Amino acid sequence: MTSPIPAGFRLGGFHCGLKRNPNKEDLSLIVCDEDTVAAGVYTTNLVVAAPVVWDRARTPSDKIRAVITNSGNANACTGEQGDKDNAEMAGIVAKQFGVSADQVLTMSTGIIGHNLPMEKIRAGLEEVFQRLGSDESHFDTAARGIMTTDKGKKVASRQCEVNGKPVKLIGMCKGAGMIAPNMATMLSVVLTDAQLSPQQAKEILSEVTDNTFNCITVDGHRSTNDTLLLLASGKAGTGEISGGALEGFKAELQQLCEDLAKQIPADGEGSTHLIEINIEGCANREDAFRIAKTVADSALVKCAITGGDPNWGRIVSAAGYSGVKFDPMGLELRVNGHLLYQKGTPVKFDEKTVSQSIKDSFETDVTLRFTEGDTKFRYWSSDLTVEYVKFNSEYRT
Amino acid sequence: MTSPIPAGFRLGGFHCGLKRNPNKEDLSLIVCDEDTVAAGVYTTNLVVAAPVVWDRARTPSDKIRAVITNSGNANACTGEQGDKDNAEMAGIVAKQFGVSADQVLTMSTGIIGHNLPMEKIRAGLEEVFQRLGSDESHFDTAARGIMTTDKGKKVASRQCEVNGKPVKLIGMCKGAGMIAPNMATMLSVVLTDAQLSPQQAKEILSEVTDNTFNCITVDGHRSTNDTLLLLASGKAGTGEISGGALEGFKAELQQLCEDLAKQIPADGEGSTHLIEINIEGCANREDAFRIAKTVADSALVKCAITGGDPNWGRIVSAAGYSGVKFDPMGLELRVNGHLLYQKGTPVKFDEKTVSQSIKDSFETDVTLRFTEGDTKFRYWSSDLTVEYVKFNSEYRT
Repeated sequence: MTSPIPAGFRLGGFHCGLKRNPNKEDLSLIVCDEDTVAAGVYTTNLVVAAPVVWDRARTPSDKIRAVITNSGNANACTGEQGDKDNAEMAGIVAKQFGVSADQVLTMSTGIIGHNLPMEKIRAGLEEVFQRLGSDESHFDTAARGIMTTDKGKKVASRQCEVNGKPVKLIGMCKGAGMIAPNMATMLSVVLTDAQLSPQQAKEILSEVTDNTFNCITVDGHRSTNDTLLLLASGKAGTGEISGGALEGFKAELQQLCEDLAKQIPADGEGSTHLIEINIEGCANREDAFRIAKTVADSALVKCAITGGDPNWGRIVSAAGYSGVKFDPMGLELRVNGHLLYQKGTPVKFDEKTVSQSIKDSFETDVTLRFTEGDTKFRYWSSDLTVEYVKFNSEYRT
Repeated sequence: MTSPIPAGFRLGGFHCGLKRNPNKEDLSLIVCDEDTVAAGVYTTNLVVAAPVVWDRARTPSDKIRAVITNSGNANACTGEQGDKDNAEMAGIVAKQFGVSADQVLTMSTGIIGHNLPMEKIRAGLEEVFQRLGSDESHFDTAARGIMTTDKGKKVASRQCEVNGKPVKLIGMCKGAGMIAPNMATMLSVVLTDAQLSPQQAKEILSEVTDNTFNCITVDGHRSTNDTLLLLASGKAGTGEISGGALEGFKAELQQLCEDLAKQIPADGEGSTHLIEINIEGCANREDAFRIAKTVADSALVKCAITGGDPNWGRIVSAAGYSGVKFDPMGLELRVNGHLLYQKGTPVKFDEKTVSQSIKDSFETDVTLRFTEGDTKFRYWSSDLTVEYVKFNSEYRT
């Protein structure tokens, strides 16, 4: 089997001491062989970390040469010193590869409000420069280097054909919601050897994000650091991509991002279920999104799934307060395929069977069908457990 | 001491069998001696219970003669039969007092999706008719009759002078968020002997609600049954009220509603803290409301307070994703009076002292000061505990 790593990238990770456990990487470096197209999607939080400010100003671009990420410290709410430290981190990487600091993107994740321990990072970078490579093991080390409270690395890859050439996509992400005290939070990088212009990369990344990374929730808390980067080396020899070929590539990217995104609520702190919310029959995407998000964020819905309770009242009433206008008499609700609610009244169903279907499977399907149109939409959430509350209330005390 | 019950009302409660525990009242009746002014504020949920549809169509009014409430069953999502049962309940009360069913308001709270056991209600109503009175004990029985999972009755009263006459206000409410499986949820009735027109009653009730009952959250789940009624008998002999006298009365009503409203998150399922969120320096009320609500609904903020953790990062980042534009460098955060965050950077503070102040008090004060204007706003929330999750995930299973 050939390497799943797209041509044009080398990767590496290292433990420099930001995390206490010496077996856990806390630096992750991706180096591009040549100037590379990069686009980003960033948190909409008004309070943003230094690396988000840095990357926003430098993407989209066709001159990116590296992405350096540290975990264990978010470099958020750190004032001017935070900006200085971030620039220094980019500068050290730039110097090593003989490029400008503006060609280096940065990401940070971890505790908020503490300045980066730059001595550890300086020493760690020297080490990580020695450990770069383009094998799957290098990719895995880099993927572990962006983790915080994740149970394990979150990666996905795909191969497809574009303009008759084999193209590779591979991605890593981290996050389990803004779950841990001040952990900040969702980071992801996708690499491909397809050829994209900066504008193409930006556009398809935004579109794909709207249907994948923007459709997940653990606790509804949007962090200060969320970043998703797409790097396209163009090394696959596809030439320019447009029309159907671009659509095809976008579909592959979307599937990859969905694979990555779903791993986040699946690993939501303390979660015992991945909840997939399917919305059908809405008038438009915005309505479908609002209903899905309201149901997905409801603590009562989450608790019901935790307990294997086919509690349709919580789901129907959450849809009802989403702010979207719909005909309540047209609403149909299914959980794991079982019809629970129709035409404004509960349906007779075997509670034990439905409850057992929730308990027996890690994934729970909640499908809400409306009669306002034909827009479909999907959203993913984790359930809410005693362990989530314990973790988030007892962490510091 | 004179009775706190305003003139013109008789009340009573009875256990008819909707609740299992025979010591818990599940019917509550308020009867007006004469035609009485009444106004209501109702849930904004699109999925609404039969009594909400009924009352909405009949308020404001100056002809109301009774309010009949049952607890233990919400009569929500019960289709046509639900409407019929609700009308029958109003009709039985109307017949007893020789008035029209349109002069009787209804409220229901309890499990969603089950038809009312009308035989029990019919028999119970005959009993409650025999138990009416205007002593405090009658009021208390009626107040217990609207409870579901509340730990105890929630009541408040005030006396003031309007146009030189002594005026009484007394209120009852129930609810602990939409906390229990399908419990639906917030009900409240306020009685006064002041003289108001239906339009006045409607307007001041809406205004007061915006600053009291609309400023509380337990889990952000808006129910299908929320109802707040104001009944004004005019028996205090105030004559028409306007200008400063009306403002004065409104201030008293607001204080009463605040006293009632705060009892709901204070009794939030499993809650160990009442969190008061004070917003200062916003450009307008809407911005202040959005920030307050976002912080109040954050599971991470709630968990931090549960654990006595002065976790300013969670509070600041919740404000940041509220959707309100503000200068992050101008934000100042205090918890129980201790400054934790200022000018975009954390402030040095003694974590143990602040933590202890959270642990030592049932009430936690979170004050966020902005630099966009001079609008102030308050919001109340409960914390999130292991008991909340246990209760809501293990109830049925």
